[in-house]
Amino acid sequence: MPDAEIIAIGSELLTPQKIDTNSLYLTDQLNALGVEVVRKTVVGDERERLMDTILGAVARSQIIVLTGGLGPTEDDLTRDAVASALGRAMVFRQDICDQIEERFRRFQRKMVEINRRQAYIVDGAEVLTNDRGTAPGQWIEQNSTVLMLLPGPPNELKSMFEKECLPRLQRLLPPQVIHTLMLRVVGMPESDLDQLIAPVYLRYPNLATTILAVSGEIHIHLRARSADAAQAEALIAEVAAQIEPLIGDRIYSRNGDSLEKVVGDLLRARHAHLSVAESATAGLLGGRITAVPNSSDYFLGGFLAYSDRMKTKLLGVPPEMLIEHTAVSEPVAKAMAEGAKERTGSDYALSITGYAGPEGENVGLVFIGLATPHGSEARRVQFPGDRERVRAFSTNIALDLLRRNLSA
Amino acid sequence: MPDAEIIAIGSELLTPQKIDTNSLYLTDQLNALGVEVVRKTVVGDERERLMDTILGAVARSQIIVLTGGLGPTEDDLTRDAVASALGRAMVFRQDICDQIEERFRRFQRKMVEINRRQAYIVDGAEVLTNDRGTAPGQWIEQNSTVLMLLPGPPNELKSMFEKECLPRLQRLLPPQVIHTLMLRVVGMPESDLDQLIAPVYLRYPNLATTILAVSGEIHIHLRARSADAAQAEALIAEVAAQIEPLIGDRIYSRNGDSLEKVVGDLLRARHAHLSVAESATAGLLGGRITAVPNSSDYFLGGFLAYSDRMKTKLLGVPPEMLIEHTAVSEPVAKAMAEGAKERTGSDYALSITGYAGPEGENVGLVFIGLATPHGSEARRVQFPGDRERVRAFSTNIALDLLRRNLSA
Repeated sequence: MPDAEIIAIGSELLTPQKIDTNSLYLTDQLNALGVEVVRKTVVGDERERLMDTILGAVARSQIIVLTGGLGPTEDDLTRDAVASALGRAMVFRQDICDQIEERFRRFQRKMVEINRRQAYIVDGAEVLTNDRGTAPGQWIEQNSTVLMLLPGPPNELKSMFEKECLPRLQRLLPPQVIHTLMLRVVGMPESDLDQLIAPVYLRYPNLATTILAVSGEIHIHLRARSADAAQAEALIAEVAAQIEPLIGDRIYSRNGDSLEKVVGDLLRARHAHLSVAESATAGLLGGRITAVPNSSDYFLGGFLAYSDRMKTKLLGVPPEMLIEHTAVSEPVAKAMAEGAKERTGSDYALSITGYAGPEGENVGLVFIGLATPHGSEARRVQFPGDRERVRAFSTNIALDLLRRNLSA
Repeated sequence: MPDAEIIAIGSELLTPQKIDTNSLYLTDQLNALGVEVVRKTVVGDERERLMDTILGAVARSQIIVLTGGLGPTEDDLTRDAVASALGRAMVFRQDICDQIEERFRRFQRKMVEINRRQAYIVDGAEVLTNDRGTAPGQWIEQNSTVLMLLPGPPNELKSMFEKECLPRLQRLLPPQVIHTLMLRVVGMPESDLDQLIAPVYLRYPNLATTILAVSGEIHIHLRARSADAAQAEALIAEVAAQIEPLIGDRIYSRNGDSLEKVVGDLLRARHAHLSVAESATAGLLGGRITAVPNSSDYFLGGFLAYSDRMKTKLLGVPPEMLIEHTAVSEPVAKAMAEGAKERTGSDYALSITGYAGPEGENVGLVFIGLATPHGSEARRVQFPGDRERVRAFSTNIALDLLRRNLSA
């Protein structure tokens, strides 16, 4: 199967404000055909650099998607640069010019002279119809390489890709099925996880494995491609059967669901209600739980007890306990969770108390409390990292503590 | 002035889910030094392609920033690929290994064998300290070209770039004075703001103007570059004198401070304390207020009252009021704020109640309440957009309501 590369053209994509997002859509479409995107490049509206980029791509890759630079102005250079790079002429097409003029008429506007530039195509190119704008696309085959010239505006690009490029690519490429396994893991560092499972996935070079650390969680993607659906599925099943037992119950989802969604579903299935008592995170846990639509089915509310006095006043933590153990301690974490459970009437309650920093001793030390209908417990965690990470990671551990309790 | 290119390394950046955003930060930083970014490339964890990309960049550009691929696992190839491309050896550095081991010890973990990979550097490289993670960066000079190897995680990358790369780049590059005006604005749409101030900034083509909408706020950056400091400063002052009166008190900061920081400073100056009562946002406001270090100086805590029953139980909102006006109403927003103020003993309290969706009538309707020592008020807002935006934008309006009250 040939590989693809994507070249996004436009000086605005080299500023601090703007990013090329068309490539995400294109990658998704190409992957579905079994084609991997192996390189993405962003270049400005500068003739020399653009030609150099195109020449490099043609020498390497069999599928090249170029986006942008098909407009009518001076700085729209994609057509010219591709023609020069391929050593082909530019050809004026009266039929395209007429279509552009007709489009302007339809919107009661007059075509301005510069739009004639859009009626030039690279000699030998097939024209790709643009039903959302004036710039036509182009499909160029050169030896065993295909170049697609697509417009930059996402709505024009998507419509053109689906209607004009997909059918041509399907004719060109061998049929393929892709089977994916997504595992989401919480409670272990990326390097430990990789050490654990690398011996397995390294034995399957025909499997694409990616391991991604996202805000203290790890997302594992395994992707198998085959001309035969059963074969791709069997390969994934074979690898999953070896990897999943190694990670065990640290896997919290197999379908892309977030940790807060998984915990919510477990609570809903038990008709149980949850409340929270937050100190160091001061709302991040509640905010995360309620990011899930319909979380009101199981989430009642809770308390932000940022000061010692509020821990006593809002949650009933005894002042003597705060003096004896300090606010960041196992007894206080448990007392906070118990207080939230009792004062909201929930079945379960989670608490978080810790030192988020940035200053002071013990930065990163956090206690997570959990109160359940059968008693309460607390867990001590020591995080590396800055204030933002300590707070975000604490919500992971809290949700995971509840998940394990509900799954037990 | 030399040009720069940025190479982002990681197969996950070639999936449909993930995009390289580090380059936006890096572009901003490089532009501020007067350096333009002329090309961005994304390549996967594949040795041949990575080497090919590095060789191409070294042949073209004088400043090359590589991000990612410095981790401890098999697929972290940046160090190796750079060494091979430059024809240099890899050198094991016991001192770096000791530092990594020490970092693990500090967090009560044991360094695993694969982390030793991170102690190898390209022969002749300067080591760039990573104060947020294990992977050290590298600074390599080859003829007139500089290569920077930086870690992929944004918090590690930013800290390293500011502390280690900026001073080195400043020594390397011809001096330029850049004078910047940063205005942060809340309470008006980006397009309205642009229409208001464009007639001014368009008359100054030698001024770089960027307008950025960030989660319901707008950040305006005006940047003047010159070899002469007084000249740059005078230009900024001239433009600011025309733009600021147009926006008025919707400007909440002129130094990059966040809205929650500005509000916190106003509270601290009055020795006043704040509490919150959140329904629709269920902690996002508290979480945001306490993102500011030392927010315990003025933030006491508060209540997450997600259900009607909790609004009564935790905040004393009369059940009749909830029946007569519904939970999303002006009287309930005021009663929630008053309840939080009274039950925490704070001087000020903010409340948020609304329909975040995704389903149901009135999605996007939100009431923000404010209780002060002199009485209480509520504001009705109707947001467009999805659940996430409604919740995030609501915290802007709440903080801005308090800011205006405290500034009056």
